[in-house]
Parts: sequence; C-alpha cells; structure tokens
Amino acid sequence: MHFTSEQRLDGDVLERAFTLGGIPGILWTPASASAPAPLILIGHPPLGLHRMYPRLAGRARYYAAEYGFAAATIELPGSGDRPRLAAVDQARADLRRAMEAGEPVSGEVVDALILPLVEQAVPEWRAALDALLSLPGIGGPVGYEGGVISIGVRLAAVEPRIVAGGFFAGSLIPATVFEEARRVTIPLQVLLQWDDEGNDRQAALDLFDAFGSEEKTLHANLGGHTGVPHFELDAGARFFARHLK
Amino acid sequence: MHFTSEQRLDGDVLERAFTLGGIPGILWTPASASAPAPLILIGHPPLGLHRMYPRLAGRARYYAAEYGFAAATIELPGSGDRPRLAAVDQARADLRRAMEAGEPVSGEVVDALILPLVEQAVPEWRAALDALLSLPGIGGPVGYEGGVISIGVRLAAVEPRIVAGGFFAGSLIPATVFEEARRVTIPLQVLLQWDDEGNDRQAALDLFDAFGSEEKTLHANLGGHTGVPHFELDAGARFFARHLK
Repeated sequence: MHFTSEQRLDGDVLERAFTLGGIPGILWTPASASAPAPLILIGHPPLGLHRMYPRLAGRARYYAAEYGFAAATIELPGSGDRPRLAAVDQARADLRRAMEAGEPVSGEVVDALILPLVEQAVPEWRAALDALLSLPGIGGPVGYEGGVISIGVRLAAVEPRIVAGGFFAGSLIPATVFEEARRVTIPLQVLLQWDDEGNDRQAALDLFDAFGSEEKTLHANLGGHTGVPHFELDAGARFFARHLK
Repeated sequence: MHFTSEQRLDGDVLERAFTLGGIPGILWTPASASAPAPLILIGHPPLGLHRMYPRLAGRARYYAAEYGFAAATIELPGSGDRPRLAAVDQARADLRRAMEAGEPVSGEVVDALILPLVEQAVPEWRAALDALLSLPGIGGPVGYEGGVISIGVRLAAVEPRIVAGGFFAGSLIPATVFEEARRVTIPLQVLLQWDDEGNDRQAALDLFDAFGSEEKTLHANLGGHTGVPHFELDAGARFFARHLK
C-alpha cells in the first residue's frame, strides 16, 4: 500500500489516497484517536471513484468525525482509470438497449454484467483489508456497506473479518446471489428504495428474505434510486456502532 | 383530568395515573424540563393497561429520560376495568375459533373486531389530547405510536395535532383502513415483524405502500410478534426527535 496524497478535512478527519497493486483507493481516519478505530469498507456502484467521491467522502467523514470509525474504499475493476472489462462493457450496452426498448432484462445479461465484477472485486477488497488492517490506528472488527450488493453478499459470505453489513438493495441481482445470501449470517441492515424505478422491489424483498442472518433489518424509504433520506446515514452509523465494538 | 397517583421513577421521570371521563390513563413526564415537552401518545393492543404496563412504561421512561419527551396512554374501550364490548368479544371468540381450526379469518370478523374499537377509541384519544395539552410542561407537537394500527391510521388521518406516527404493522387490518391510509400524509416509521406468525406480511407491505405520506420508512426485522429488537426503541425515539421540534 502506497500513499499518494494526504489532506486534513473538517471535523478532524485525515483523508489519504493510496494505490495497492495498481488499484487506487481512499482511506479516511479520525485524526486524533486514542484506540484502534473499527473499519468500514464503503462499496459503491461501478461509476468510478472520481464521480462517486462526494457521496463516499461525505459518508466517511461523518463516520470518522461522529463515531470514530476509519473508512476506506477502492476502485472497482473496469472503472475509473483502471483497464476496461470488455465483457462487462458489452453486457452494460446490452442492458441499456433492453431498457431503452422497454424489454425485460435477461438473466444472462445480469449475470454477464455482475458476476465478473464480483469474481474480480472480492479478492481485491480482501487484499485491501489485509493492507488496511496492518496500518497503525486501524483495528478490527470490520463492516462493509454499499453497493454493488452482489459484491457485499460474496464478501459477507467468505470474509470472516467482516462482522456486519449495511447493504443497498438497488442493483441487478444474479440468480446465484439469492442462494449465496443463505450463507450470510452476520447482522445486516438493508436499505431499499421503495419506488426505485430501476429496481425490482419484489427481488429486493426476496433477497432480504433469503439472508441467513438472525439479525437482519430492512429499511425501506420513498424516493428513487438516489433518494435515500439523509437520516439513513446516521441509522447506518448506529447499526455499525452496535456491532463494531 | 383527575390524577389518582404519582411516583418518581429512575432517570428523573414522573409517572402519574389519571382518569378522564372514567377512562384510566398514565402520563410520564421528564421531572425537570426547562421547556414544554413534546408529547408521544403510546398506543397498545387491547390487552388492558395493567398487562401492558411493563412495555409501555419501559418505552415512556426511555423517551422521557433520554429525549425529554412526555408520553401518555389511555385504556382502550372494552379493556382492563372498562365495560366489555359484547360485539367485539364475540368477534374475538370467532377469530380464535377460526385460527384454532386453521381456517382463514373472514373480513367480517376482522371488521367486527377492529372497527368498533376505532370508532370509540379515536374520540377518546382526541379528548385525552385536549386534556394533556392543557397541562403545564406539555407542549405540541404530538406523535402517536404503537398498535392497534387501525386506530393510529384513523388518528393520523383526522387529528391535525399529530405530526408524526410510529406504527406497528402487527394487527388485523380491515379493508377500509387501506383506503384511509391514503389520506395519511404525516411522516411515518412503520415496524414490521418479518416472520410474525399471526400476521400477514403482504398485507403489511400493502398498507405501507398505501400511506400517502411523502416521508415513510419501513423497518422490517426478524423475530415473532413480540420479538421487536431492542434497538428499535431508540430508532423510534430518533424518528420522533426529528419531527417533534
């Protein structure tokens, strides 16, 4: 892990950009912490870190300033300045064509769009976790939050250091992910935008139902895909505060 | 309103029993408050105040001690020491017979069980609100929380002093209540027990969908009818704190 820049943000939060094996990432930490900070991995849709930065930094600064959490994110495969993934780009074009034509999106297109991302991203997040947890000032336990939900499901199923998940039920879900969800047993808080025009409400409810976790909470709110109410930021932080002790 | 007893509880909370037009009730207030306290009306199933007391007092004490809210509840018609409602008792016996026989519960039985309760209880809660808001130390705005959800829906639809509702989607719902829900426009937070054996999950989701409110949040959790997780108490308090200012 190689730090490439560093700045102090309002609220006494240190933001550091890094690269790890050629993958860019950002780490936010409380600038003055007496004990190792719990860590939240902040996932995001494959739109590139630069475009996602305001939303990601807003969440991370709140976590660090109000709850003393460290937070980190990395660029997804095929996004930002990373090499494109030709098959995923093809699937995205197929998806767009189907949606513009008002046709149903086939399972093949969903699989082609999401599964390669999961396969490549999950080992990268785990490698980032190795590096992050070796830094001074960052301790376990670890939470994961945000989209792509299929990445979160896989991470929660295979990575024992992740002990709590804050998922956003807002992306296309391959059929195999519903099966995988049964193997997830960590506490979950799942956000669902009730009238998300680009999302299948019933599929989100079915996925929530499928999770094997004994503690799972669904928060459904009005508003479209990007209209998650501001108060869910603190509700998410308090969920993590209960579990990252 | 006539106070019949008074005691000081841990956390500097004053609990006063009262009667109002022959209806027993309980009022909890922060013992030392500098400004008029917002008021939360705490609804409950028709099991009698005595049986419900531990749950109601636990909530009210938390609200008063942690958030400075006043809270109050009154006995429902036909419950506790109040005169029985013969038609409702008959409907309850019909309901029990149907459930023990594994038969579906007819809309007629649901209507007979719930609608007379709504008709009689709602004016009583409004009269209690008049009396409570005339006391020193209690100011508006007002929230309503708890079951019977059909009573909450009617109150939210007709009582302009109630500005936020924390509902529990856990009781039988007459068909007319879904229509009435469209006229509810105040912010809502709705609790749903995901695998509540005595409850119809789809009906609860349909009711959530029907509410006319622009801000409405559904919190679904695992556990049966009485298994609402402890952390929802604070989540409810924070919802009211956002709206009762």
